[in-house]
Amino acid sequence: MSDTPGSGAIGRQRWAIAEGYIPGWSNGPEPQMSSHETCCILNASDRVASVRISVYFEGRDPAGPYKLTVEPRRTRHLRFNELRDPETIPPDVPYASVIESDVPIVVQHTRLDSRQAENALMTTIAFAAD
Amino acid sequence: MSDTPGSGAIGRQRWAIAEGYIPGWSNGPEPQMSSHETCCILNASDRVASVRISVYFEGRDPAGPYKLTVEPRRTRHLRFNELRDPETIPPDVPYASVIESDVPIVVQHTRLDSRQAENALMTTIAFAAD
Amino acid sequence: MSDTPGSGAIGRQRWAIAEGYIPGWSNGPEPQMSSHETCCILNASDRVASVRISVYFEGRDPAGPYKLTVEPRRTRHLRFNELRDPETIPPDVPYASVIESDVPIVVQHTRLDSRQAENALMTTIAFAAD
Amino acid sequence: MSDTPGSGAIGRQRWAIAEGYIPGWSNGPEPQMSSHETCCILNASDRVASVRISVYFEGRDPAGPYKLTVEPRRTRHLRFNELRDPETIPPDVPYASVIESDVPIVVQHTRLDSRQAENALMTTIAFAAD
Repeated sequence: MSDTPGSGAIGRQRWAIAEGYIPGWSNGPEPQMSSHETCCILNASDRVASVRISVYFEGRDPAGPYKLTVEPRRTRHLRFNELRDPETIPPDVPYASVIESDVPIVVQHTRLDSRQAENALMTTIAFAAD
Repeated sequence: MSDTPGSGAIGRQRWAIAEGYIPGWSNGPEPQMSSHETCCILNASDRVASVRISVYFEGRDPAGPYKLTVEPRRTRHLRFNELRDPETIPPDVPYASVIESDVPIVVQHTRLDSRQAENALMTTIAFAAD
Repeated sequence: MSDTPGSGAIGRQRWAIAEGYIPGWSNGPEPQMSSHETCCILNASDRVASVRISVYFEGRDPAGPYKLTVEPRRTRHLRFNELRDPETIPPDVPYASVIESDVPIVVQHTRLDSRQAENALMTTIAFAAD
Repeated sequence: MSDTPGSGAIGRQRWAIAEGYIPGWSNGPEPQMSSHETCCILNASDRVASVRISVYFEGRDPAGPYKLTVEPRRTRHLRFNELRDPETIPPDVPYASVIESDVPIVVQHTRLDSRQAENALMTTIAFAAD
C-alpha cells in the first residue's frame, strides 16, 4: 500500500438533506456547545470544489444559492447558522437542502442540540443522487 | 454557477423506514420538546408531489394509505403522530413505513425523544428503492 | 392512487450492520428505558420472510445463524439482547451483523443507551448489498 | 438455510466519512463513557483485510495512511483517538476520513459524546463508493 494518504476523488456531485432545523436556543459553553446544524463536506480530489447550496422551506421559495469552495484534499464543516449571503436561515423553522459541486464530494449532516441541559446528537450521510 | 437556487428534481419515488415508534410521553416545553417521529420530505422538482404513506405493524394489517401533497420546491416535515386519516398511529407501538410519490423526492427519518428530562435525537436518510 | 396500503416488496436480500454493542447497564422504567440494540426489519412483500442473522466479533468466530421469520406485510423490531438460540450475545462486547432473507426486506439499526440518567439514541439504515 | 453463520464477503472496498470530531473532554466511568469517535469495520470475507485510513482536515494536508488489518470473519471497532502511527489526531478539530481495503468491508461511524453530564450518541453507515 502507498505511503501517501488518500487516493483521489470519492463521492458524487449532487446531494440532498431532507431534514434541517436550527434549534432556537442553547445551553453550555460556546462555541462547542451552542446548538448547531452542520453540513460536513469532504473534497478528497486534487481540484478545488465549487459548491452551491440551495435551502428549501415549507412555506416560501428556496433561499440561495449559497456559494463556497472547498480546497483540494480538505474537509469543511459548515454550520448552516453561519450562512449569510444572500440571507440568513431563521432558527426554529424546518428546512431542507441540496448541495451541488463541480467535483465529486461526500456530504454528511449532523445536528448538536443543546436546548436542554444535556446535548443531543444526530448524524447521517446525505442522500447521494445517481 | 447559476444564481437561481436548486436545479430541479432529485431523489427517488419509493422509500422505506424500517424503524418507527412514537414515544408514549414527553418532557419540556411544547411543541418543540414534545416527543415526536418525523418524516422529512423534500420535493425539489417543479411539480406537485402526490405522496402516499403506508404504515406496517408487528401484529396487524397495515394502516393507510395516508395521502398528502408536497408543493413544488418545498419541504414538508410530517409528524407521524399528527396523521389522522384513515386512523391515528398509537404511541408505544413499533411500526415501519413505505413512502411513495409520483415525482422524485428525498425522505429522511428523525425522532426526538423527551421521555426523560433531557431530549435524545436520531436521524437517517430513509432507504431509497432502486 | 390506490386505497390499499403498500404496493408490495421493497428492499434487498442481504444487509450488514458494522456497529453493535449491548450496553452493560440501564436507568429508567423497564422495558421502554432498558438499554437495547434493535434490528428493525420491514417485510412489505406478500410472502413470509425467512431471515438468518450472523453475528461477528473481534476475537472469536461468528455466532449464529439466528433464524426467524417475518410475516407478510409486517415489521419486526428485534432486540439483539433477546436472541437466545444458539447462544446469547454478551453485553459490553463489540459486534457486527449480517442479515439475510429469502425475500426483499429493509433493515434499520437503532440503539437506546440509558447507562447514564438520561437516554441517548442513534439509528441508521443498514448497508444494503447489491 | 445453512447452519454456518455468514455467507462470505459483503460490502465495498472504498468508504468515506465526512464528519469527524474527537470531543475535547468527557464525563463518566472510563473507558465506556469516555468521549470517542469510532470507525466500525466488518470483514465478513474469508481473507484478511488490509485497511488504510486517510484523515482530512480543514487547514492542513491529510494525515496517514493509518494501516491496520481485520482478520477474516471478524469486526474491528477502531477509536480514532487511539490512532498513533504516523501521528495522533488532535481533539476538538474537525476532520473527515477515507477508508480503503483490499477486500470488501462494511464501515459504520459512531460517536459517543460525554462532554456534558449525560452522554449523546450518533451513528451512520459510511458512504460506499461505487
